[in-house]
Amino acid sequence: MIYLDNAASTKIHDDVLDVMLPYLKEQYGNPSSIHRYGRLAHKAIEKARKQIALLINADPSEILITSGGTESNNTALNGIAMKNPSSKIITSLIEHDAILEPCKKLSKNGFDIDYISVDSFGMINPVDIENTISEKTCLVSIMFGNNEVGTIQPISEIAKICSKHNVLFHTDAVQAVGKVPINVKELGIDLLSISSHKLYGPKGIGALYIKNGISIDPVILGGGQEHGLRSGTENVANIVGFGKACEIAQNNLSENISHTKKLRDILVKKIFNEIPKVTLNGHSKSRLPNNAHFTFLGVNGEDLIIKLDEYGIAASTGSACSVNTQKASHVLESMGFSLEQITGSLRLTMGIFNDEKEIEQTVDSLKEIIQELRSVSPFKEKYSFTFDN
Amino acid sequence: MIYLDNAASTKIHDDVLDVMLPYLKEQYGNPSSIHRYGRLAHKAIEKARKQIALLINADPSEILITSGGTESNNTALNGIAMKNPSSKIITSLIEHDAILEPCKKLSKNGFDIDYISVDSFGMINPVDIENTISEKTCLVSIMFGNNEVGTIQPISEIAKICSKHNVLFHTDAVQAVGKVPINVKELGIDLLSISSHKLYGPKGIGALYIKNGISIDPVILGGGQEHGLRSGTENVANIVGFGKACEIAQNNLSENISHTKKLRDILVKKIFNEIPKVTLNGHSKSRLPNNAHFTFLGVNGEDLIIKLDEYGIAASTGSACSVNTQKASHVLESMGFSLEQITGSLRLTMGIFNDEKEIEQTVDSLKEIIQELRSVSPFKEKYSFTFDN
Repeated sequence: MIYLDNAASTKIHDDVLDVMLPYLKEQYGNPSSIHRYGRLAHKAIEKARKQIALLINADPSEILITSGGTESNNTALNGIAMKNPSSKIITSLIEHDAILEPCKKLSKNGFDIDYISVDSFGMINPVDIENTISEKTCLVSIMFGNNEVGTIQPISEIAKICSKHNVLFHTDAVQAVGKVPINVKELGIDLLSISSHKLYGPKGIGALYIKNGISIDPVILGGGQEHGLRSGTENVANIVGFGKACEIAQNNLSENISHTKKLRDILVKKIFNEIPKVTLNGHSKSRLPNNAHFTFLGVNGEDLIIKLDEYGIAASTGSACSVNTQKASHVLESMGFSLEQITGSLRLTMGIFNDEKEIEQTVDSLKEIIQELRSVSPFKEKYSFTFDN
Repeated sequence: MIYLDNAASTKIHDDVLDVMLPYLKEQYGNPSSIHRYGRLAHKAIEKARKQIALLINADPSEILITSGGTESNNTALNGIAMKNPSSKIITSLIEHDAILEPCKKLSKNGFDIDYISVDSFGMINPVDIENTISEKTCLVSIMFGNNEVGTIQPISEIAKICSKHNVLFHTDAVQAVGKVPINVKELGIDLLSISSHKLYGPKGIGALYIKNGISIDPVILGGGQEHGLRSGTENVANIVGFGKACEIAQNNLSENISHTKKLRDILVKKIFNEIPKVTLNGHSKSRLPNNAHFTFLGVNGEDLIIKLDEYGIAASTGSACSVNTQKASHVLESMGFSLEQITGSLRLTMGIFNDEKEIEQTVDSLKEIIQELRSVSPFKEKYSFTFDN
């Protein structure tokens, strides 16, 4: 199989699994226990916390460990909202559902949510945020890099605007951490969500960076773990793995960026060379290095995924998570795409384990599949598809 | 090391780790992805859901997978409360903090919480619940087996009272599932919390049984996983491991009960024979088979744990989770214990991997340690400790 769905989830790095295994075998203590088993587990968590912090230039005390990116986003939004009753939150129309759904709920509970729109490349204009901020705004939450089209937002500018108006700034950086350099201090970020399984770590674990001095209301209460901000026995093995994944990502960041960007660029070029009537969606420059998102007119994206799967290629139409809700991409809608354009979309996301051969094979297969699907497309006449071969 | 802190966490069963490994290696798909990787991950989750359901005689559709027992408890309380604004909840004084802390927060947010007291054995009188239920009561939450003293509550009677008054009944069964037979249908339970790492599964995963027809408000929102009740990419490997742990627990239930009960009874008998001035706390009969909880007068429990650790024995004064809050056991306080009695407490919890030799060695070490600690105890004169040897 050729796995080109690295934005949905990634393979755990061998070195990550290696450091996890002792905590799945002999080191099974509860980190809250005061005996040896407990102390070792506790120590392992604190080591991982440092590794996570280092990747984004945070202090370990600023890292709250959660069960994943979704919980991190929920914690950021609810945690800040609950501290600011009847306030306003600004977010964008192209956020992940893990932001949009908690926002919907907050709006039912007396909070006002302002939604910023994007241009046809999925880009936010920071001026729109500045114009929307009011005295009641307590938080701006704008994603770092989009999970579907890969567009990277002007994070530093947005952070400056928030800081100027004394409004907290959260960013859902689940797709960006480990893919692009992120320095929370330099960028001026107040809260930032991370997910382990997007960066070659295990699933079911993530973190929320909370800048020192910012106080949030906990979402999950109990034994008081994570300084009372996230109760529940810690998922030690996954935390240790997550920490290692962050360390590996940091040590190989520029190399990984070069590698995935090179593969992505080869892919895009070859597709444009060999398949007619295709567009690359998202921003051409301000973009996650591993993301390619296309529209193949006259093709149904889901048929395409199923065909690609038959050819041994794992791809996606957009967000994996949206499959549960079975709705058309709100990201592409916000970018002004027609239903026909949305229907024909395909996301291919490279990872560190992909190679050039796989990319070439993918385009070869894709060409065959598109040709086949277009030959029976109801839009056949409309576009008069022609292939060179 | 001799590990007698199985109520805090348990060693992952070898067969559990074996089924987890493929999902930590080659099967890394996101269960929401429609390609092969995704479908395999999805299928694995549904298999696990069946295994979890079977252990408590639920339907797989009644199993909501969470990040652990604490999240399950939070979800039960908040999930039901949010559906019943300004209502009342009944719980007990000896619940885990994962119940008491969300209750405290609910009481700040306009809900009334009634706390039922217990007798000196940690037992609730169901009549007290019946007398406390009012028209405004929406939920009764009473733990199945206590995490400190092991007392098992009259669950069936409580469930009957709740049913009679049309009030939902939740039980935190984190310490009981896999340790005693639990049939949610026969017992009449509406909601039940489970934790994987208490039954030889991995940490960071758990479940909430929600009887068909009961509607709850989700706590974590996003991509709509778990039928919209718990969003976030599923922790596939841990879910698969949790499922297997439930299957193993079910297949070996009576054997495991016999084994841990036998060890526990040997332990208790030997301690009573060899160490003076000791009491066994909790109920003598209605008790988790693997739990022993003692008070050694004149001894500081924390000193005892540290000494036992030096002797290579892992034990606990009570709940591991209470370490974070550094407070005296609210369970023992509720049972009417004096601070002196609470201070001298020791919890030893057996597991399926313990054997008789370990139990004998533990008592031998304990005898030496107690003798040593009592020889320098400020209570030395008061109790005039004497040992036979």
